[in-house]
Amino acid sequence: MSRKSKGINAERELIHLFWKFGWAAIRIAGSGSSRYPSPDILAGNNLKKIAIECKTTVDSRKYLTRKEVYELEEFSRLFGAEPWIAVKFSKFSWFFLSLDDLEERENSYLVSLETAKRRGLSFDDIVR
Amino acid sequence: MSRKSKGINAERELIHLFWKFGWAAIRIAGSGSSRYPSPDILAGNNLKKIAIECKTTVDSRKYLTRKEVYELEEFSRLFGAEPWIAVKFSKFSWFFLSLDDLEERENSYLVSLETAKRRGLSFDDIVR
Repeated sequence: MSRKSKGINAERELIHLFWKFGWAAIRIAGSGSSRYPSPDILAGNNLKKIAIECKTTVDSRKYLTRKEVYELEEFSRLFGAEPWIAVKFSKFSWFFLSLDDLEERENSYLVSLETAKRRGLSFDDIVR
Repeated sequence: MSRKSKGINAERELIHLFWKFGWAAIRIAGSGSSRYPSPDILAGNNLKKIAIECKTTVDSRKYLTRKEVYELEEFSRLFGAEPWIAVKFSKFSWFFLSLDDLEERENSYLVSLETAKRRGLSFDDIVR
């Protein structure tokens, strides 16, 4: 399976989870290629809206580009949503990290499995 | 130009308008083919979120299917957004109609140019 299909499958898995818990969730068309800042997923209920950048990895570290983090932050600010990074490490459930949990590197941001375990929220934490 | 491309171009035009006025707006991936209810566009700012079913026509009447109207209503209820139908009749600007403005027909809902002129809101009405 290509890296792109894996990414889209992970996004779909997360979207199913939200609907299962009574939230509405959608994938954004052209995320990453649009001329406007755009995350991967938007989810909401009557109380809360969240914008999500979605990542999977077989490694214990995942890097996000500056552009991805900027777009997530900027979109969330304008739309009126909470920005979250959802990361799926192999053999672990989803971790949700806030922008403050990212470790800044020279030209990117790092999410390590160690940080995710220590500071990340679970899917249940997010929807309850 | 195919009917589908015309539809997507109309959606893009509306999205540009929202960004121009300081709102965030996105097209939803797989709208209409998804297993979950889904409108065409989501737009929001810090005060308001709106879900939009987007239509264009060269005629003076436009029909929506029961499924389209149901999905717009259901998605909006779960996500926590206002449901709107945006219709672009040739030579007119966008009209925004609420679900109450639709005229029920046997297996569909009708938006007539006459009703749109009388009861529709303009884009300016929506973003201000």
